[in-house]
Order: sequence, then C-alpha cells, then structure tokens
Amino acid sequence: MVGGGEGAFIGEIHRIAARLDNHYELVAGALCSEAERSIRSAKTLGISADRSYIDYQEMAKKELARTNGIEAVVIVTPNHLHLRIAEIFLKAGIHVICDKPLSATLEEAQAFAEFARKSDKIFALTYNYSGYPMVRHARALIAKGQLGEIRTVQIEYAQDWLSEKLEDSGHKQAAWRTDPKLGGEGGLLGDIGTHAFHLSSFVSGLQPTEILADLNHFVEGRSLDDNAHILLRFSGGAKGMLWVSQVAPGNENGLRLRIYGSKAGIEWSQENPNYLKFSPLGEPSKILGRGSPELSESAVKVTRTPPGHPEGYIEGFANIYAEIAHAVYAAREGKPVPHDVLFPDLEDGIAGMIFIEASLNSSRNDGKWVLLNN
Amino acid sequence: MVGGGEGAFIGEIHRIAARLDNHYELVAGALCSEAERSIRSAKTLGISADRSYIDYQEMAKKELARTNGIEAVVIVTPNHLHLRIAEIFLKAGIHVICDKPLSATLEEAQAFAEFARKSDKIFALTYNYSGYPMVRHARALIAKGQLGEIRTVQIEYAQDWLSEKLEDSGHKQAAWRTDPKLGGEGGLLGDIGTHAFHLSSFVSGLQPTEILADLNHFVEGRSLDDNAHILLRFSGGAKGMLWVSQVAPGNENGLRLRIYGSKAGIEWSQENPNYLKFSPLGEPSKILGRGSPELSESAVKVTRTPPGHPEGYIEGFANIYAEIAHAVYAAREGKPVPHDVLFPDLEDGIAGMIFIEASLNSSRNDGKWVLLNN
Amino acid sequence: MVGGGEGAFIGEIHRIAARLDNHYELVAGALCSEAERSIRSAKTLGISADRSYIDYQEMAKKELARTNGIEAVVIVTPNHLHLRIAEIFLKAGIHVICDKPLSATLEEAQAFAEFARKSDKIFALTYNYSGYPMVRHARALIAKGQLGEIRTVQIEYAQDWLSEKLEDSGHKQAAWRTDPKLGGEGGLLGDIGTHAFHLSSFVSGLQPTEILADLNHFVEGRSLDDNAHILLRFSGGAKGMLWVSQVAPGNENGLRLRIYGSKAGIEWSQENPNYLKFSPLGEPSKILGRGSPELSESAVKVTRTPPGHPEGYIEGFANIYAEIAHAVYAAREGKPVPHDVLFPDLEDGIAGMIFIEASLNSSRNDGKWVLLNN
Amino acid sequence: MVGGGEGAFIGEIHRIAARLDNHYELVAGALCSEAERSIRSAKTLGISADRSYIDYQEMAKKELARTNGIEAVVIVTPNHLHLRIAEIFLKAGIHVICDKPLSATLEEAQAFAEFARKSDKIFALTYNYSGYPMVRHARALIAKGQLGEIRTVQIEYAQDWLSEKLEDSGHKQAAWRTDPKLGGEGGLLGDIGTHAFHLSSFVSGLQPTEILADLNHFVEGRSLDDNAHILLRFSGGAKGMLWVSQVAPGNENGLRLRIYGSKAGIEWSQENPNYLKFSPLGEPSKILGRGSPELSESAVKVTRTPPGHPEGYIEGFANIYAEIAHAVYAAREGKPVPHDVLFPDLEDGIAGMIFIEASLNSSRNDGKWVLLNN
Repeated sequence: MVGGGEGAFIGEIHRIAARLDNHYELVAGALCSEAERSIRSAKTLGISADRSYIDYQEMAKKELARTNGIEAVVIVTPNHLHLRIAEIFLKAGIHVICDKPLSATLEEAQAFAEFARKSDKIFALTYNYSGYPMVRHARALIAKGQLGEIRTVQIEYAQDWLSEKLEDSGHKQAAWRTDPKLGGEGGLLGDIGTHAFHLSSFVSGLQPTEILADLNHFVEGRSLDDNAHILLRFSGGAKGMLWVSQVAPGNENGLRLRIYGSKAGIEWSQENPNYLKFSPLGEPSKILGRGSPELSESAVKVTRTPPGHPEGYIEGFANIYAEIAHAVYAAREGKPVPHDVLFPDLEDGIAGMIFIEASLNSSRNDGKWVLLNN
Repeated sequence: MVGGGEGAFIGEIHRIAARLDNHYELVAGALCSEAERSIRSAKTLGISADRSYIDYQEMAKKELARTNGIEAVVIVTPNHLHLRIAEIFLKAGIHVICDKPLSATLEEAQAFAEFARKSDKIFALTYNYSGYPMVRHARALIAKGQLGEIRTVQIEYAQDWLSEKLEDSGHKQAAWRTDPKLGGEGGLLGDIGTHAFHLSSFVSGLQPTEILADLNHFVEGRSLDDNAHILLRFSGGAKGMLWVSQVAPGNENGLRLRIYGSKAGIEWSQENPNYLKFSPLGEPSKILGRGSPELSESAVKVTRTPPGHPEGYIEGFANIYAEIAHAVYAAREGKPVPHDVLFPDLEDGIAGMIFIEASLNSSRNDGKWVLLNN
Repeated sequence: MVGGGEGAFIGEIHRIAARLDNHYELVAGALCSEAERSIRSAKTLGISADRSYIDYQEMAKKELARTNGIEAVVIVTPNHLHLRIAEIFLKAGIHVICDKPLSATLEEAQAFAEFARKSDKIFALTYNYSGYPMVRHARALIAKGQLGEIRTVQIEYAQDWLSEKLEDSGHKQAAWRTDPKLGGEGGLLGDIGTHAFHLSSFVSGLQPTEILADLNHFVEGRSLDDNAHILLRFSGGAKGMLWVSQVAPGNENGLRLRIYGSKAGIEWSQENPNYLKFSPLGEPSKILGRGSPELSESAVKVTRTPPGHPEGYIEGFANIYAEIAHAVYAAREGKPVPHDVLFPDLEDGIAGMIFIEASLNSSRNDGKWVLLNN
Repeated sequence: MVGGGEGAFIGEIHRIAARLDNHYELVAGALCSEAERSIRSAKTLGISADRSYIDYQEMAKKELARTNGIEAVVIVTPNHLHLRIAEIFLKAGIHVICDKPLSATLEEAQAFAEFARKSDKIFALTYNYSGYPMVRHARALIAKGQLGEIRTVQIEYAQDWLSEKLEDSGHKQAAWRTDPKLGGEGGLLGDIGTHAFHLSSFVSGLQPTEILADLNHFVEGRSLDDNAHILLRFSGGAKGMLWVSQVAPGNENGLRLRIYGSKAGIEWSQENPNYLKFSPLGEPSKILGRGSPELSESAVKVTRTPPGHPEGYIEGFANIYAEIAHAVYAAREGKPVPHDVLFPDLEDGIAGMIFIEASLNSSRNDGKWVLLNN
C-alpha cells in the first residue's frame, strides 16, 4: 500500500475491504511521505520492518527483487500523485489498485493512459459504489431489457459536511480536498461527482455524449466548487440530470440513482443499499432485495449474508477487491480477466477525468453543451 | 362554476374542496359547452334549472342581474378558455377562481393582466399544492431565516401516466393535455411544471431570474413535451434544478421539494404531505408534523385534524378555497385582503406563463440561459 | 346532531365528513347541554333558530312532527349518553349514526341491543378507520384467499398524548376520556382499542374467540388504563397480538395492522394510509396503492382522487358517511341495505363492548384467557 | 474453530466478523464431525494440515500442548454440542466464543454454569445484534435517563423463511433448527427469540421478571413452534410485548425494538440499522445516525465508517469480536475485562435458556404467568 498512513480515512477502508474475503494480505507499505510516521503506521499495521518503506520508488524496486514480493499495490495518496506512483509499479510488473479519481488533471491521465494501455498488468480503480449487489442487479435488469428503452437518468450525490468552511479549522480531509493542487481543479466533481457519473453509465449501460454544467462554490472564500448542477445527454437519446453537492444539510452520503425507461423505472439509494425499487409500468412497485427470487447472477455472486442481514459500504467496497482478486488469479495463470468479473478500470478513470474537464469547460462558458469525447 | 361537467376530473375536486369548510355553496353553472350534457350535469349536482346555463356569457349576465347572484365563479375549462371567461365575470363584478395554468399562451395572459390589474375583484389561481400545512411551515421556516442563506432549490414533479401514448386510446384527460390547441404549447410544463415552479418560489421566497431547459417528448408521435430538465438561477445567487416528467414509471404524483441553505435543509414530498424533514446543520434531522410544537401560525390555521390523522390532497386544495373565502369576506366589507390570507393570484399565474415561454425558448436554442422577466 | 358543540373535536370531524360527498345537510341540532352554548354553536353552524334545540328529547319530538324533519341524527356526546339518545331517535323513526364506542358499559349496550334489533331504522357506528380504501382492499384480498389460511394478526394503536397527566391541566378531551363515569371503565380500550379490535376482524374476516389482557395505568394518579397488552385467539386457529397505548412518545395516531397467512402477508399504517404492503411468499413485496391495477371494487368505490393525490382521515371518515347514505337511500324506498354497502353497525358495537369487558375481566384475573361471547 | 465446515452458514459469518478488524487469525479447526469433510474444509480455509483436526477433544489437547496454540476457540456447532465442547476448551485454558443459544436445554446450561463460573477464562456468547452502534447508543440514552422511567418495551423478531415446510425438502438450515434433538425444544425461541429477549434487557437495562407465552406451530407436521406471542413484566413495573415468528411472509430478518418511557421513546430496526428514531415527549422525532453529535462513547467506539456509509450485519457481529479481543488482550496481562468492553457472556446465555424454559412452561399451562428466576 502506498499512502494510507496515520490519520488517513480511505486507507483504512481499503485495508478492511481487502481483508474481508481473505483474498489479500498486507505485507508491505510506503504509507506516508514523512519517514517517522510512515514507519510507525506500518508497525501498527503489522508490516515487518524490512518491508516498511518511506519511498514508493524504493518499495517498487525492492518488492520486485523479492521472490515473495507483492503481486498488487494499492494507491491511496492524494489525487495528484496517483499516476506517477502507478506507473512505477506497473513498470515493476506489479498490478495496481488505485483510489479514485484517476488523477488531478485530464492531461496527466491521458499521458498515463498511453503507457498503461500497453501494460499487461491489471489497473483497477475503486469506484466502489458499483460493487453493491443491488446496483449490479439494476444493471442486469436494464441489460436484459426489463426497463425497455431508457429515457431519463436522474442521479445525485449530496453531502453536507462542507457546508461550513471546515478546511480552515484544521480538518485534514477537508483541507486537501479543497486545495486544487492536491485534489485537482474538479473539487467536488473529482471527490464524489465521478462516483455518480460512473454509476450512471455503469447501471444504464448508456454512453454519455454531451454535458452542460452550472458549478458553484457557495461557501465564501473556498476556491473549488461545492455544488454542481449538470445536464447530460446519452447516446440513443436518453437524457440525464446530475446533482452533486457537499453543502446540502441533512445529506450524509446521499448517492441516489433513478432510471426510467419505456417499460419500467428503478430507484436505488446508497444509504439503505440492500433494496431496489422496481416499478414496471402498469404494475405495483416491487421492493427487490438480496433475497428476491430471480436475482441476477452478478448480484448473487457479490453477496455474503442472507436477506434481511444488511450489507453495507465496506461489503460493497470488498466486492470490488474480490473481483480484482479473481482477475489476479487469472493473470497468475496467464489468462485474461474472466467475463463475469467486473471492476472499474483505466477507461472508467479516463471517462471520469473527461467528465470533470468538460464540466469545468461548460460552466466557464455559462452552460454551453460540451461533447464528452477523448 | 364554468366547466367541470360530466367526465371532468378537476371540476369535482374543486367542488369538494369548496364544500369542505362550508364557505361555498354551488348554486349556478355552465358546466359544459354541449347543452344537453351541461343541463344533465347541473341537475346531478343539485343546481336549480333556472341557474343551469349553457353559455357562460349568459350566466355572467343573468347572475349579475339577480339579487342573490353568485359572488364568485370557478373556471375549470381547458386552458385556452380560462381568460376570456374570467374577463367576462370580472367585468360583471364577480370574483374569479381559476384553475391553473393561467392560459394557453403568455400573450393572452399579458393582455388579460393589463385589464385584470385594474379590476377590484379577486382573481385567484389554484396552485393548490401551496395550501398544504407543511408547505406553509417550510415557507415560514425560511422566512424566519432558519435555513440561513438559501443555496440550492431541488424540485421535481414526476408522474408516469403518460409513459404510453394514452391519448390515442380515447383517454379524455390525456387527449386535451397533449393537444397544443387546448392545453397550450407548454405540454407538461403547463400541466404540472407550473405547480412545481410556483412552489419553488412560494416556499423559498426567492425570485427566479434565469432559466435553462432541455425539453423532450419521449413517446413517439406525441407533439408536446413529456419530460423537462431545467436549471434555475435565483436572485441572491441561489441555484435550482427542476425535473418534470410524465414518463417516469413508478411515480404517481411525485411532487418533491428540497431546499438547502447555509444553516439547514428541508425536504417535503406531496405523496405523504403531513411531514417535513428539517435538518439543521450539525444536528440530527427532525421530522416535523402538523402537531410539532412551534408550528408556524400560517400552518396551524390551515389544518383541521390532530397530528397523526392525515390530511390529503383535498384538504390542501380546500385550504386555498378557505383563504380565498376570507378575502371575499373582506371584500364584502370593502376591505383589502388580510395580511395573513395567502393564495396564488394573477401575478403567480403570469410568472407561470413566463416560465413556460422561457423554457420553450431556451430549449429551442439548445439550452441557452433565458431571462425570466415580464 | 346531538353533541358536538363548541370545543368538541369529533363533532366537527363528523360534520366535515358528512358534508364532503354532498349526501347530508346539517339542519337541526342539540349541540350542548348548556342552553346558551348550544344556541351559540348552532348559530355558528348555520342551523336556523327554530331547529336549534337544547334538549335532545325535544329535538326528536319536534323533528318527528315536521314534514321536513331530519332523516338521520348523529350522536357525538360522551359515551355514557349515546344509547339513551339513540333509543329516543330510533323510536321517533329517525336513523341513528353514533360515535364509538357504543356505550360506557356492556350492560347498557345489551339492554339497548334488545330494543334496537327490533327497529327497522338504521343504526350505524363510526369505526371510521374501516372506511380507508386500502383497508377495504386488504379485506378483499383476504376474502379472496390471497393470503391463504390466516395465522397471525398483529395490530397496534399507539398514541402519546396522554404520556403526562394532561387531564389535570384543564384539557377537555383528556378529562372526559379519563373519567370512568363519562367514558366508561374501558379507558383507552373504549377510546382507541375498540377501533383496533374492530379493524382486526373487519380485515381478517376472522371471529375473535378468546382474549387475555395485561392492562396498566402508567401515569401516576390516573384512574383508567393508558396501556394495554393483549393476546387474541380467533376461530380457525389464528392468533393475534394487540397493543394499545396512549403513553408511547413518538406515536401520534399509530394504528397499524399486519396480517400473515400461509401464502402472503400484508402491512398497513393509518398515518400514511394510501399504501398497502403486500408480500406473497417467495415474491418481492409489492406496494399497492389506490391506483394499482386489479384494485378491488370495494376499494375503488370509496376513493375520489387519482393515485399519488393522497386521501386522509377525513376522506376515510366520509366513506363511512357515504355508505350510510346509500343505506338511507335504500330505506327511503323500503329496500334493505345493498350488499356492497359496508358500514359498522350495532353488532360491531356490541362486539367492542364485549372486548372491553373481557379485557378488564382478564386483566383483573392476572391474565387468564376469557371467552368473547355475548 | 469447532463446527462451521462446508455448507454451514454461521461459521463463515463468524470467520469474516473475526477477520474484519484484524484481531484474530484462524489457525486451527475441527470443522466437521465427518473426517473427510472436516479436512477439506480446513484446507479451503488455509488451515495447515497439522492443525486440521477431526475430533475437538484432540484439538483441545494438541493446541494446549503447542507453544503457539490457540488463545480462543469459536464454537459454531448445533446447539446441543455447545457446552460439552466449551467445557473441554475452558479446561485446556482456552477462551471460548460460543454461538447462541447457550445450549439445547436449561438443565445442561445450569450444570455447565456451575463449572464455568469458576473458570478464569473468558466465555463469550454471540448475541451479535447487541453489537450495532445504534443499539449501543439506545442503551446509553436509557442509561443516562433520557427516556425517563421506562414503561413499555415492544420487541419483535419476524422472519418468513419457515412459512412452508422447508425442512422436508433437504434444506440443511431448516432441518436441524426444527429437530428438537439438535436445536432443543425451544424451536424459534432458541433460534431467534433469545436474540430479541437479550436485546430487550440489554437496551432497556431492565430485568425481566415474569413471562406469559402463547406458542404455536402453524406449519402442519412441524414438531417445534414457529410463532410465539409473549408478554413480559420487568422489575420496576415496565411491561413488554414480544412477538417472534418464522412464518410471517414479507419479513426477512425483522428484528425491531421500541422502548417508551415517561420522557421519550425510541425505535430501531435491524434491517436498516444505522438509524435510531428518538422521540422526546413534546418535541419532533429526531433521526439519530452514527454521525449525530453527542453520540455516546459506546457507539462511537464500534463504528468504522463515516455517517451515510452504511455498516451492516457483519460489522455489528465484528464489534462483538473486537470487544472480546480487548478482553483477551487484558487477560494476557492478567487484567480483568475493562469497564467499557461489552459483550454477551455466560449469564446472558443462562438468562436466554430460562426464557425458553419459562415460555414453554407458560404456554403448556395455557398462558399462566411464570417467574423468570434461576
């Protein structure tokens, strides 16, 4: 693991998610750029001293040299460092699992992509919300045509924790996320908007083609946006609406997805993720759960507990890790990623960066439609 | 009553709402343009034969001539007839209660406004959703500053009953609503969008200044729009998002309002209207009901039953009628409308027509921002 | 109307409910036992002076003597007066609509029943919750066998307004309800328990045969019970659980019904009454609403607004009044109550009094099973 | 681990829960009484061959003999084997973590207790639902007096998976649970009733003193009960109602708890466990979550993710494991279990067995009140 030392939030989540299904063991790390802290963090996590690194370059080199060196590295640093680290590990023949968004700028993402597309190592990106069983079932319903032709995609991701200027009062998570140099120009779009954007096409199966954005930073003195009102157009004629906010009091982690087609509609909310409302036209709405009959294979394979025994955020995150593990197992035998293994990858990451860039572009032009192409 | 004969939906709602609090008595009507049907409808409703009219002009003239002639007329015809009827009754010195939207076109609305603004008779428009107690309480909370400075207004009105081409199968309600000549060019904007638009400023207290719209008709062969994705800008810097749809399976009458400010957020949904979620920043969300302590005066005065005894659509509608009745009582004594009496009026109607016109204008120009001024 | 003068709660509800569908006109009343207040109340309600009575005996006599005398009387006095008033009006040939519970004691109920069963006039009791469309649909589903053999009936009616000793602070509603002389020994059982008890057999179609009760008065100094824990046994082997409380903070008017059979289960809650959860075994739960396809005839006939336009407490109450009106119309022509007309009657009232008596009996015997027979 | 081999459900849950927070490592096991299956299961789980046992007695002996022998054993066999296994491991100086209920009969539980109370090793019982953060917060609220004097405890645990005679069709989980020899006479009381019973006193802080039960087996041919209607009396005068069912269609794992006191009420449901409804008398209800300000220390310490990032069943279960780990760490240093470490133990297990025995006793006597004492 690179990054994720003391005080980091997402690093610990990655560690628990990786551990949950017993596919991964944490054996090496460069957890922090400060030497002392990095070593202390590694020790706390049970990493042996000889695999506790300060410098990720050294880590890549030394792990490559070991017979029992790491097979995969997890990158959980601030955004602007993701890809320079990823490149080094890929070059060392080590699979990469990278936190989102892909990078701080589209430019560096595209440069990296050129290199990474030629690598035969796995590059996975943790858009973790695509790991929830009912999200996968929603995707399967749509793929099977049960919604008919998709007409509208209503997606939102609302939080409230940046409603005040938290970054001024020493809040570490708030500070780096609102600093363009560390988090990128995207602000909330990179932090949470990319999750929602990814989910909208992951579930709908549609390609977003055009975007129009009205971005705002409502908290005085903040340099990055904290609210985004976005319209989308998809290939095939569907339309979408995306609201992203970190200044909406009463919303903790309100990622919600609704998709409507000519035959049926669906609704899903991340905060109670074990249920999916399915409304076939002319029939009563049905509450589908993990125990529903005819649950799709793709949902069944990512659930552990019986219906009524709720699974949560960590389980959804762990599903991404489990899927990547299956890809690693295949890679060990020189096989491609199996068809039924599903995790976000480089192309999803690039799409997210294009989304950020195009949104900024549209908003700076007072809301003109901008094409979403590479 | 003019319009609202056999087979009409909204006419019967108006009659029940008017009757509920015992302020109104239905004594005269020109319920239908077909003579036979008009007379039969009137008879069914207990209107005496001598006050059962076929022609609304005749009705206005004869009622004016009676000593016990009607004080107020209710207009529940298709949209394009509203104002020519209203004008005649206002000229006859009879107060007018008109169904929404104001008219079929902005042009006729503006022509009428010029005349009506000079009349000393009441002109009320039944944007009935503003009559719900918890909507009034939301308005009061914001007016008292409990949300702080408003930042975003998320409003939506989603239905599913036009997901298929119902208008082709003899469905009367669908037919006139999807015919531009009878309902106006606004399609779903006139039918339900104006309700949502009105509510957004009624509750927030903000003036919408700019609009950007992406309108669609998804059902093949339909000439009017059945889905609208709209962005709003308000005076003072708040931003808004408005989704209106009649093709969203699983949504019966999904009018939902969420407003977020610097200090708190609120959520309200029409389908379970007796509750309002209030989320002060840094505190747990509270479920406010009609029985909550410190319920605002404006909400208390429009509720009849104790908390837990749900009030519904008809009660909300009746509240508008009761408020208008208090205005009529004041008018009888030559007094102005009392300060605490609140019902939508001509200016709200004009605002709704501007909203429709500007939305069409924006959408036809591929989503440019359009000013909302008269 | 007898009772229901100034300050009364339920009298006004009856008046609105009666008025809603235009079947009734309020023309006479003995609204209060205090002369001045009775006259003032009648005047406020638009009752003409010659039909504004102080004494209900006089009212029965004089109305009987009129050619246009009342056809039906509504009794909304404290419980102990219900039947002596009812008897007088029935004897005068006037139909009776009586608020629940039937009386203050089983003894007086049985004495009255002997007389009333011989009368050819209508005696209706307003167990109003049986008027909700989705309650009627639940009953229809069970009658059609869609739940299979019924196994358990879980019913509860929880409120919180008597959590403190409100009756000491001049609260009129609290005062008479907690006075055994006025409300009867039943306390909360008469006030709200009978509603729940009635609903359990109205919907399930089952006959309760045995009861076991643990009754309590938690608020110090109160002489009547404010909480009841009750077990039920039904003919056919089904079992039931009934919780009634007026001291459960957070419950406004929490009447909730769940019934489970060998094939399916249902859930319904009065506070959001427009939906019914229907869970066929082995299928996802369905949210049935007033707009659901295949809604039973008995539900369709008692609904006024389209799905998504919520109906509430008053509409449910008005449905009972509308059903009684149809019985009155039939009676005018000398016909029996039509088969599809459904309202609670004398036998339901007697069953409620037996329920109270048996519960008191069981509780006083430390929870022995008591038979529920007349 | 003893038990939990191939095909077992709860064994895998224990393993994930133990692993989640990195306090435990699975190194030895006697996973199945069939030799071949036991060895295969151990291999799959990465247990080395020399610590893969067939016989638990051998396991206890050999692990005791190792310098790196296990510190604690997890017992996840059918109920009737729990205590004979536990005794052997305790005697070998190994801490015991035992699945619930304690045993198949009260008699064996009491015999074991006599021995175990003298042991200085830890005996923990996985009433896992007491591990949820909001359950702990509910307990803390009551302990701090925020509900006032407790009046009623309404608890229920409803499932539907035994609505049909699943045990006849080769369903392993159904088969042993409905066989008195393996699961005990308690049937659903042992399987899920004990969870609910434990929770009612864990949260309320009250001692249940008397019980009255009406037990049923609704599915024809089943020898154990599948539905229980129970009344409770607590020390201090509070009353309770407990419904347990495995034949309630539409209920997956419906463990729900409501407690009402003189000052406030609470509601919690296991299927969406991250929220707690808190209703102070005379104030609006509040939705408390894991991110609420003033969340009690006991809740804060058992949560991993930020508010809005749901935690589920496995996390709640893992909290019990983490608490036990802290007790083991203390034991290593010869210290007692720290004050703030909270997990169910032998006495909770005994209480559960008394609950089962007393319920059976009451029901067999047609519902007489039975004392709950040891």
